[in-house]
Amino acid sequence: MPNPALARLLVTCPDAPGIVAAVTAFLRNHGANVTALDQHSTDLEGGTFFLRAEFTTGHLDLEGDSFRDAFARVVATPFAMVWRIDDASTPKRMAIMVSKVDHALLELLWLWRRGELDTDVALVVSNHDELRVEVERFGVPFHHVPVAPDTKADAEAQALSLFEDAGIEVVVLARYMQILTPTFVDRYAGRLINIHHSFLPAFIGADPYRQAFERGVKVIGATAHYVTSDLDEGPIIEQGVGRVSHRDSVQDLKRLGQSLERDVLARAVRWHLEARVLVHGNKTVVFA
Amino acid sequence: MPNPALARLLVTCPDAPGIVAAVTAFLRNHGANVTALDQHSTDLEGGTFFLRAEFTTGHLDLEGDSFRDAFARVVATPFAMVWRIDDASTPKRMAIMVSKVDHALLELLWLWRRGELDTDVALVVSNHDELRVEVERFGVPFHHVPVAPDTKADAEAQALSLFEDAGIEVVVLARYMQILTPTFVDRYAGRLINIHHSFLPAFIGADPYRQAFERGVKVIGATAHYVTSDLDEGPIIEQGVGRVSHRDSVQDLKRLGQSLERDVLARAVRWHLEARVLVHGNKTVVFA
Amino acid sequence: MPNPALARLLVTCPDAPGIVAAVTAFLRNHGANVTALDQHSTDLEGGTFFLRAEFTTGHLDLEGDSFRDAFARVVATPFAMVWRIDDASTPKRMAIMVSKVDHALLELLWLWRRGELDTDVALVVSNHDELRVEVERFGVPFHHVPVAPDTKADAEAQALSLFEDAGIEVVVLARYMQILTPTFVDRYAGRLINIHHSFLPAFIGADPYRQAFERGVKVIGATAHYVTSDLDEGPIIEQGVGRVSHRDSVQDLKRLGQSLERDVLARAVRWHLEARVLVHGNKTVVFA
Amino acid sequence: MPNPALARLLVTCPDAPGIVAAVTAFLRNHGANVTALDQHSTDLEGGTFFLRAEFTTGHLDLEGDSFRDAFARVVATPFAMVWRIDDASTPKRMAIMVSKVDHALLELLWLWRRGELDTDVALVVSNHDELRVEVERFGVPFHHVPVAPDTKADAEAQALSLFEDAGIEVVVLARYMQILTPTFVDRYAGRLINIHHSFLPAFIGADPYRQAFERGVKVIGATAHYVTSDLDEGPIIEQGVGRVSHRDSVQDLKRLGQSLERDVLARAVRWHLEARVLVHGNKTVVFA
Repeated sequence: MPNPALARLLVTCPDAPGIVAAVTAFLRNHGANVTALDQHSTDLEGGTFFLRAEFTTGHLDLEGDSFRDAFARVVATPFAMVWRIDDASTPKRMAIMVSKVDHALLELLWLWRRGELDTDVALVVSNHDELRVEVERFGVPFHHVPVAPDTKADAEAQALSLFEDAGIEVVVLARYMQILTPTFVDRYAGRLINIHHSFLPAFIGADPYRQAFERGVKVIGATAHYVTSDLDEGPIIEQGVGRVSHRDSVQDLKRLGQSLERDVLARAVRWHLEARVLVHGNKTVVFA
Repeated sequence: MPNPALARLLVTCPDAPGIVAAVTAFLRNHGANVTALDQHSTDLEGGTFFLRAEFTTGHLDLEGDSFRDAFARVVATPFAMVWRIDDASTPKRMAIMVSKVDHALLELLWLWRRGELDTDVALVVSNHDELRVEVERFGVPFHHVPVAPDTKADAEAQALSLFEDAGIEVVVLARYMQILTPTFVDRYAGRLINIHHSFLPAFIGADPYRQAFERGVKVIGATAHYVTSDLDEGPIIEQGVGRVSHRDSVQDLKRLGQSLERDVLARAVRWHLEARVLVHGNKTVVFA
Repeated sequence: MPNPALARLLVTCPDAPGIVAAVTAFLRNHGANVTALDQHSTDLEGGTFFLRAEFTTGHLDLEGDSFRDAFARVVATPFAMVWRIDDASTPKRMAIMVSKVDHALLELLWLWRRGELDTDVALVVSNHDELRVEVERFGVPFHHVPVAPDTKADAEAQALSLFEDAGIEVVVLARYMQILTPTFVDRYAGRLINIHHSFLPAFIGADPYRQAFERGVKVIGATAHYVTSDLDEGPIIEQGVGRVSHRDSVQDLKRLGQSLERDVLARAVRWHLEARVLVHGNKTVVFA
Repeated sequence: MPNPALARLLVTCPDAPGIVAAVTAFLRNHGANVTALDQHSTDLEGGTFFLRAEFTTGHLDLEGDSFRDAFARVVATPFAMVWRIDDASTPKRMAIMVSKVDHALLELLWLWRRGELDTDVALVVSNHDELRVEVERFGVPFHHVPVAPDTKADAEAQALSLFEDAGIEVVVLARYMQILTPTFVDRYAGRLINIHHSFLPAFIGADPYRQAFERGVKVIGATAHYVTSDLDEGPIIEQGVGRVSHRDSVQDLKRLGQSLERDVLARAVRWHLEARVLVHGNKTVVFA
């Protein structure tokens, strides 16, 4: 669903009077019509302010960089904003990393092919070769980049090189069972999404379905989050949950959990692609 | 939780470029700081536009009616707005109407006493006398206004008179098992909230839990809505649902349903009191 | 996940003392170990009794028909049972009927290929040819059986003939947008599952997402049910729900709803395949 | 809802062939009609078996202890069962312990007065005096038993003495903000229910709503569990969850969480009272 004449503005800045007025007046003055506006402030006094605006670009009086330069000068600088404007007419280019389990990968590929994810899936990288046929069926290049303990740096460099060549703007770990180095993580900070198969912060680490089974919980979950250097500690984008009971084996939890993972990851990726997520410290603001 | 220096602006108008800019510039120019802003448009072209702004009033350069007059002249009239400004420092005065079942009534009274509903519960009117002691325990006047087929008009007149004397601004039907006349409904249009014990539009009418049992549904619900002259057809404010199974008797559905009713009604009433609900035709926009 | 040495007994009969004792003693006496047992009674006095038992068959002292004959004579006849025993080692053969939208179909095919549905998908029948390639990728025969108003009877006969040749035991309508004749429905009574894209009994009939949008509901749903001659009135097997808001367009409801449809249909089909669903009048007992 | 002629049998034993047959034959032979039966096995081979049976006692050929003795001899001993039979006609006597926050306490008292909890609330013990009036309104004795670091043992002894005098069979910690000693916990092992205000095992310990806020989760929860000597580690009976967003303050999480706590605790207590919960190691089997 490309949106030929839409752009999205994301702003983070110290809260202060007049921000919304300044932003909306600027857009208005330059021919934009605001079609969606969300804002949030962490605190009335001394808080951080977040804003997302979606606006038409068909009648702007300035183009591309000129428009951005004007915004920086007139609005962003006075309010000390961290900001960006995404052109909605150009889908972000996405890479997916996966190991052997296919459910999260296939959900993304399938939604994408149905036109429900506004992205270009440019390539898939896997440390195994098992899912090649599945991926190539969708017309997406599949790259097998094996990872061994002593080749991890090389493997990551190879992946990053592939991403660079393909102009990748967002990387999704659709059950990629490798811990990434800080170098890699920093390269895609705020654009690297992982699906963790538990309701974080419960059951951090390996085999969370078994952990949940052993603890005897009555609800399980899945968590999509941005990856940071702290494993399973990055800003949470979305979580989903489902009921379980004593009747459910580890295998049952896994099956239900995979259904949750698919849903949660799909929502998180969609929101990221539509520029609905702002990161603030270790938390997110999601204008969904 | 009275908010001494806050007000809430609600706007409905034809969509047009520049509305948000005009509103926020006006507020800014008169010393208000916008602390929350939500907007919605039904359609980019020719749609209806809705806005809710919460703003500080401590440093306004105009007071009360002068401020409203200025807003009308500068902003509301040019954009053909239907609008109102609620002063959050003055809780709305509320009346509750009830018959014999107490769960919805008690939930409201209890939340109110805990400071979780920003209102003054001024009185309770019931067509039965059963719940008098329960209500008076909360220090709330209880009025028994019996209703018989041939006295309905008188009874409603009596209730309206009580409401007028008490300056009632919102009326909640917390399981009031009487159909109200259009006269009554019109008097409190958009301010008269009912809780229906089903997931509307399923099971309109009497004994919905039995209807749900007979149909063998696997999920039941409750619906809070504004009352209009069409029974159970008014704009829906909020709905809640819960799972049931073949093991559940009508009595079980009722018990679970009452828990849903309490939750759903409490949310709907809170949102109404905080001026988060706009009515548009037979639907609502809820800026929750 | 075929279960080589398991069988499932389903019983419906008038409630009476001693049923469970009689069933379990019979199984025990003939070498079966009960691995799961569920029962339900609609009423202590004069109610209908339902039972599902899962038991090992590895050490039975009687085989196949002899075992069934003995059960009929010793247990079923005295208690006037309607009953069947499913051999879990032989997956039921399934046909899927579909029109043009692929989400429900693909969910079933995909779960089946992953080994999460204990069935043999023998063929797909569609009144359109659009999904041929998609289906054939899974190695499943695709039959295009066009339907026109004056050829409906022929088309159904053709489908039934395909089903008969393939030994089909369960038919799933994965968004098959044709009303079936009573002849067809009767042929697969209790074995014909439909997914309806609303929370029945709300929004019966065409375009339920648009109906839900127009009514302004805050929760939407999907319903899997056995098909009977009354459109959208058959016994409900499973329902699922999701929250929506004024921000959601008809298109958004459809997207969310399709996710619900996939989940709900998958659960209902799994339960049917595992002999967990008993039909009683217009309701179901689901031993999930 | 006392059930004059009903009893409930709870069984835990090593899995073995013939358990259900033996139990149901025994009940049948002695004049009981089984009205509900649930079973669960952790593993087909070498697992633990759990059974709950609800049966009529109106036509038993043996009374009270004679019936129990016969069951022990004929069924329980041969199968090495841990078991008990609860007479449903005698509601269990309950004590509630609370500190200062009233929501969980009031929910229980209120449901009990409406006849929705099959118990006798015999007394409330609090380490503060704040809730006396509230409790006495329900006609329930309120005991203020202050706790200081050096008087904890005395305070617990005083509470246990009150419980003994009142014949207390189940103790509910409705937000009792004191850690109990192993002596106390052991005295009511398997009959001491706590509500923890988080989705365990996430956010163990103090101020979980603040922890949840700081972590930026998108779903919060509440957990009812049996208390053991390991703080927040006891067997989980029930959990409930609710969605939150960046808009929610700690105060908002607390308000939503209290609603979850009320629901979750009420379900857990109801299930315990109806003998639907069996403890197995650090997990529960809940036949709900």
